[in-house]
Amino acid sequence: MSKNPWDRSPLEVLRAGPEFDLASFDPSSTPGWSDDKDDGTERMAEQGARLADLQEMLFAEGRSGGTRSVLLVLQGMDTAGKGGIVRHVVGMVDPQGVDHASFGKPTKEELAHHYLWRIRKALPAPGRLGVFDRSHYEDVLVVRVENLVPPDVWGGRYDEINDFEAELVASGTSVVKVALMVSPDEQRARLRERLERPDKHWKYNPADLDVRAKWPAYREAYQAVLDRTSTEIAPWYVVPADRKWYARMAVTELLVDAFERLGLRWPLADFDVDAEMARLDAS
Amino acid sequence: MSKNPWDRSPLEVLRAGPEFDLASFDPSSTPGWSDDKDDGTERMAEQGARLADLQEMLFAEGRSGGTRSVLLVLQGMDTAGKGGIVRHVVGMVDPQGVDHASFGKPTKEELAHHYLWRIRKALPAPGRLGVFDRSHYEDVLVVRVENLVPPDVWGGRYDEINDFEAELVASGTSVVKVALMVSPDEQRARLRERLERPDKHWKYNPADLDVRAKWPAYREAYQAVLDRTSTEIAPWYVVPADRKWYARMAVTELLVDAFERLGLRWPLADFDVDAEMARLDAS
Repeated sequence: MSKNPWDRSPLEVLRAGPEFDLASFDPSSTPGWSDDKDDGTERMAEQGARLADLQEMLFAEGRSGGTRSVLLVLQGMDTAGKGGIVRHVVGMVDPQGVDHASFGKPTKEELAHHYLWRIRKALPAPGRLGVFDRSHYEDVLVVRVENLVPPDVWGGRYDEINDFEAELVASGTSVVKVALMVSPDEQRARLRERLERPDKHWKYNPADLDVRAKWPAYREAYQAVLDRTSTEIAPWYVVPADRKWYARMAVTELLVDAFERLGLRWPLADFDVDAEMARLDAS
Repeated sequence: MSKNPWDRSPLEVLRAGPEFDLASFDPSSTPGWSDDKDDGTERMAEQGARLADLQEMLFAEGRSGGTRSVLLVLQGMDTAGKGGIVRHVVGMVDPQGVDHASFGKPTKEELAHHYLWRIRKALPAPGRLGVFDRSHYEDVLVVRVENLVPPDVWGGRYDEINDFEAELVASGTSVVKVALMVSPDEQRARLRERLERPDKHWKYNPADLDVRAKWPAYREAYQAVLDRTSTEIAPWYVVPADRKWYARMAVTELLVDAFERLGLRWPLADFDVDAEMARLDAS
């Protein structure tokens, strides 16, 4: 499978444009892909190898004075598969080049700072692929739904986040934002599995059901995120996540695209190759 | 290949005991392993899957209040394959559970602190596999060879390092120290490849040849490290590294052993499973 097997580009079909409507979105669909799971797995392995190569070129650039980086932002309800993306997609590249951070409930110290404080501290270093498992978007998702700050406070954050991301992009960080969408039924099945299997108990938290009970409020909060922060420079990609293989393959494609748009080249030698070869031979 | 194919345990044959002599060590050997490379690759894949499972259990423990962690310390001359270990061995486990740090020439800020300052900052969080690409041992290797501090200063560091590692172990961090040993001839071949291939130029540094010219002094410094810091609680494993497949397979085994000795178990549920199942069904 060497020619592109997508019917339509995942970049195009997954991107949240101005008309995007979460209420009519189907988390079990496989937009742009009409082949089966095996074909998807094969495509993912191919593109994963490409991703690993591109990531090494970015790493090399970073080691040679470059300042660019890529940041993958993962959002989604519990069980949407954020961890699986990290393990199976990010896991295909060299761990040396990955800066991973996950953002749970803020600590006391974090709460004492601006909500972007902990985010800025975790930004990828030059040459790295940063991965945020949850992110600053929690500050307009759970914070909004749970009324953790007044509406005029969270209401101001959308613009602030857009400004923050514009700053990131201007300083050389490509931002790839992925919202993984799981259906309520599929979430139930995944939570059930966590309860049925003792090796999955540690992933279960009774509070997950409290969040689940607020599904419509979260959908509304996600819709607002997509409406207000899917910008030209840092668009949202909404990825149906009921089929794990599709979600992982799609995110691999989004990352490959982000790296390819950097036009990466291997750094040129800043030494005299022939002279060094002569020194080496004499050593 | 499900039964253990080693002739002798890698833990036993690679461990630097009191009689260990680097001068008579063969970097092209494959101690304890008489099968071929293909068998080694197969064994590594099997043990890699085991390692990934064990690492997930440690991660789960860390998420459930546990404080234990594992730290892999990698040392070796240029081209010995430290980066390859990270990519191919550490790359087999979930990146979420890995805390990777590499220690190059200290920054001005780092130099203004005790040499263990930057090391302590990079220690693995509970539940994590920490990986040090170079480490505090640079402070008795390059620092000793290059006379960067007076002999009485570096001379005091061996005991200090032993104390530091004893403290680590006492606080729940298993320390796995690996010295990758490449031969001068193999190093020449690997440096040559970096010069011949434009996609490898970024890995080449003319200063590598200056270090290479001091091979005997480095061997002496490594011998002192092995003599003075291969302790009961944190022994050194000296891994022949001319054959990459052997080195990677051997380090995989050392890690699997370190994790297995933790006697990991999946955390028990701290909630009522049946009650949660009923809540889930009603949701």
